[in-house]
Amino acid sequence: MFNKRVKIRELLAQEPTGQEVTVMGWVRSFRNNQFIALNDGSTNNNIQVVAELGKFDDTLLKRITLSASFKVKGTIVPSLGKGQKMDLNAATIEVLGDSDAEKYPIQLRNRPTLEYLREVAHFRFRTNTFGSIFRIRHSLAFAIHKFFNDKGFVYLHTPIITASDAEGAGEMFRVTTLPFDEEKNKTPRNEDGTIDFKEDFFGRPTNLTVSGQLEGELGATALGDIYTFGPTFRAENSNTTRHLAEFWMIEPEMAFYDLEDNMNLAEEFIKYIIQYAITNNRDDLEFLAQRLAEEEKQLPQDKRSDMGLIEKLEFVLNNNFERITYTEAIDILRESNHNKKKKFQYPITGWGMDLQSEHERYLVEKHFKKPVILSNYPREIKAFYMRQNEDGKTVAAMDILAPGIGEIVGGSQREERLEKLEARMKEMHIPADELWWYLDTRKFGSVPHAGFGLGFERMVQFVTGMTNIRDVIAFPRTPKSAEF
Amino acid sequence: MFNKRVKIRELLAQEPTGQEVTVMGWVRSFRNNQFIALNDGSTNNNIQVVAELGKFDDTLLKRITLSASFKVKGTIVPSLGKGQKMDLNAATIEVLGDSDAEKYPIQLRNRPTLEYLREVAHFRFRTNTFGSIFRIRHSLAFAIHKFFNDKGFVYLHTPIITASDAEGAGEMFRVTTLPFDEEKNKTPRNEDGTIDFKEDFFGRPTNLTVSGQLEGELGATALGDIYTFGPTFRAENSNTTRHLAEFWMIEPEMAFYDLEDNMNLAEEFIKYIIQYAITNNRDDLEFLAQRLAEEEKQLPQDKRSDMGLIEKLEFVLNNNFERITYTEAIDILRESNHNKKKKFQYPITGWGMDLQSEHERYLVEKHFKKPVILSNYPREIKAFYMRQNEDGKTVAAMDILAPGIGEIVGGSQREERLEKLEARMKEMHIPADELWWYLDTRKFGSVPHAGFGLGFERMVQFVTGMTNIRDVIAFPRTPKSAEF
Repeated sequence: MFNKRVKIRELLAQEPTGQEVTVMGWVRSFRNNQFIALNDGSTNNNIQVVAELGKFDDTLLKRITLSASFKVKGTIVPSLGKGQKMDLNAATIEVLGDSDAEKYPIQLRNRPTLEYLREVAHFRFRTNTFGSIFRIRHSLAFAIHKFFNDKGFVYLHTPIITASDAEGAGEMFRVTTLPFDEEKNKTPRNEDGTIDFKEDFFGRPTNLTVSGQLEGELGATALGDIYTFGPTFRAENSNTTRHLAEFWMIEPEMAFYDLEDNMNLAEEFIKYIIQYAITNNRDDLEFLAQRLAEEEKQLPQDKRSDMGLIEKLEFVLNNNFERITYTEAIDILRESNHNKKKKFQYPITGWGMDLQSEHERYLVEKHFKKPVILSNYPREIKAFYMRQNEDGKTVAAMDILAPGIGEIVGGSQREERLEKLEARMKEMHIPADELWWYLDTRKFGSVPHAGFGLGFERMVQFVTGMTNIRDVIAFPRTPKSAEF
Repeated sequence: MFNKRVKIRELLAQEPTGQEVTVMGWVRSFRNNQFIALNDGSTNNNIQVVAELGKFDDTLLKRITLSASFKVKGTIVPSLGKGQKMDLNAATIEVLGDSDAEKYPIQLRNRPTLEYLREVAHFRFRTNTFGSIFRIRHSLAFAIHKFFNDKGFVYLHTPIITASDAEGAGEMFRVTTLPFDEEKNKTPRNEDGTIDFKEDFFGRPTNLTVSGQLEGELGATALGDIYTFGPTFRAENSNTTRHLAEFWMIEPEMAFYDLEDNMNLAEEFIKYIIQYAITNNRDDLEFLAQRLAEEEKQLPQDKRSDMGLIEKLEFVLNNNFERITYTEAIDILRESNHNKKKKFQYPITGWGMDLQSEHERYLVEKHFKKPVILSNYPREIKAFYMRQNEDGKTVAAMDILAPGIGEIVGGSQREERLEKLEARMKEMHIPADELWWYLDTRKFGSVPHAGFGLGFERMVQFVTGMTNIRDVIAFPRTPKSAEF
């Protein structure tokens, strides 16, 4: 029975009253052959273990090195030193695991870069930065489940392996068990030489999902309100700070919702999970805010943020998101261009154009200086399932753009009218026979409904202030990289 | 703004006091040209809408068919009929979506079988049985997150796509973007004719994960306590009622835990999530219990359960799980065989043999009649990462066996001693160079730690009483089947 230790987070919340405790953790530092900063991952704050001089033998003291692990029993007393309220006066110190400090991959004195830490992602959790990021990531995930659970949504696990490639959200990974051949050419083939997928595991070609939305709609049009929270995949060769081949997405889908209901829910949702992190991860956010502020000092004045990290989050909580239509956005962009306020790399060619990241950032960061919900996009640049507006030109789509991140949510009211949906699918060459089940929901008790998708890692980036998406997921999957 | 409807679950919890409400949902039945049972998926219980005779015209009434959808405004009054406490006296009835009742795929009068309902899985959520199952599934998932969150665990998203196939838990699906083909043989090849995986998306062969455990250990040995909850995959050609190619698994991993701590946590965990469902899904459980009882009436006396569904769950809550060692289990099985109490298809050959499902079921269902935690298995039948016991023959493994389901949890204390781990990997031909990061945790501050895996669908089966695993996941993935 090991499990009688107290977690350091809980211990530090107590008052020091001479209590006897057992603590276990890893060494963060060892000063004056006497003071051990011990950390167990429950918080960035360490417990200061005092190893009274002369009480422990040199053989033991030599083993107190960076990232070695220990079990310490002793008494909690008010600290004589500054910077902590309590000390743990060690009665016994037991080595759990040694660490050769010279060989330990993360040498703090070298100020390891984020790039380097990605190469040792198995140990980066042991740093303050990544401890904070992954505790915040956890809180955001829990807040998401709590938000939807409290509203009576059903968490639906939509399939990861899918035979449908109709959504067309991006390039897909193939999933297969066919012998991939090799010298002997064992791959089963049809007479015409093409591969015989009837022999594959699922009897047809299958891929990794790019979205659970279409299946989510099946759930919503029966259970009312559902949400998904699972991994999604893009086989795009994008080596950027914004893209992952494997990322997590939340996709709520609601029966009896129109576009406005959808926007209201999305805004409430984003504010709820940010508030949850502020309430539950204050220490971690303050650490990251401090880190970010120091990093920004290296930047020229005009590249620095107007607000600190926590200030930014509170600003989002305390202000309504700006809601404008695509058409209004185009007018603003054209105007700003015309007035030479801003020169864009991609010119504003006019209504109907797709907005680039620089345009979105201008709207959010320069023009409105707050999150923006853009709605009613031209139908030609949006997916087949979005509800067609009466104007014949636009669809009931909405994107939420966040400062520093860009698009964080994309959603729409769905086309619930069978004829309109079928016509649009035909125009866009979406194979109706593959989506018979999707069309069925429009044939039997179709209802107005809407939903949106939130990229989880982008949300974690927004809350933690991390600029590279690879730093907010445990083991990032990117082109040519699948380590760990 | 549609979102002013009241959910039927919330409405039915109110007292009928003449309140004006808007309800939306699908028709479950229509009696006497007057009484509409409307359901919105929030509960199995319907609201009875009363369409006063003569008030609505025939054209409208003809459209009130099975699974058509409606928006009804009206007044809530105490019901005059039996079986419900309130009626909704309709002021207006608006068709949202028609349903051709003759063509609707689920004809209740035909008593559709579970097998048939799998073929129309997009509509089975609209039945009482599957509404209940998926609301319970949701509650169990939420309870899992709440249990771990309340204990300070960090939810870790371990990778789905993995280059590691070292765990050896089963056959894997390949993930690739290489051109699979085809007539023109574009697949990149090395000089010796083998496929050149440097050209694949990740620059090496990759698969779908069979377990997040090894990565989970990286998290636990830094953050303390972590858990995963994500999809896992087995490319096994098992067409049984117990296997899926894609299923969800929960894998907690705890630093500073030994085997006993691990067993204690697992038992507490299972009881917590069952209690959560009993508290929050009473109606759904009662419906499924009733369903199961009726189904069992068809069975011969000796095949029927001793207990009803809810009784069974409460029995699990109120009793300690039986804890025995593998060695004790073998003795019991040998004894029962010897006494001719039980004839097994697979004979009890003696210590060292792997237990078959029939043996496990005998222990759980006949001998102890409650959940059993079996521990300390022979090392030869267990994975390389399990901690070797002092006897030199067994490892600190534990499995939890549940009545009617068999193995529901598998776990172990992990081997934290580098030399022992390396020696075992060598014996079992596990490539150490692929797992350099795993071994690293044993080189730098290794700690005793333990964890387990819970198959989520098996847990949902246990709680809902469903005998086929395909009926507790939205869209099952099985050999030759990946519809929806």
